[in-house]
Amino acid sequence: MIKARIIVTLKTGVLDPQGKAIEAALGNLGIDGVGSVRQGKVFDVTLDGDDAAGAKTRLDAMCEQLLANTVIENYAVEIDHG
Amino acid sequence: MIKARIIVTLKTGVLDPQGKAIEAALGNLGIDGVGSVRQGKVFDVTLDGDDAAGAKTRLDAMCEQLLANTVIENYAVEIDHG
Repeated sequence: MIKARIIVTLKTGVLDPQGKAIEAALGNLGIDGVGSVRQGKVFDVTLDGDDAAGAKTRLDAMCEQLLANTVIENYAVEIDHG
Repeated sequence: MIKARIIVTLKTGVLDPQGKAIEAALGNLGIDGVGSVRQGKVFDVTLDGDDAAGAKTRLDAMCEQLLANTVIENYAVEIDHG
């Protein structure tokens, strides 16, 4: 079994209203000195088999076809995450 | 300036309907051999100043008070994330 973590983040320059809302909320809570917050998504995936190279191909296909909107988002795949 | 990444994931045993929906969608796309998918959130935060110890305290406070629901979610803080 292969464990992987996929992290999907907004590309630089894409507006992130969720992040802006979090910045405002942190200020309201009295947590100061926050420069910026950008929110993204994480997916912890387990795959059958032990073929790490094949797993990378399948994980990239998942990201391209479903998990990331590659027009506005970047994705990173880490295999054998803890 | 300190950069940090916060990763919020569901605790083991907490149902994840989003993850289940992704598993089904991957099967429909013809990507087989997926054991399980669990979805979480990632926050990329920049903090003013260079005090790493103080930053850890502030980041933990953010998680406890706003970013994570510690009843059902775990969080991990990585400081000086690239």
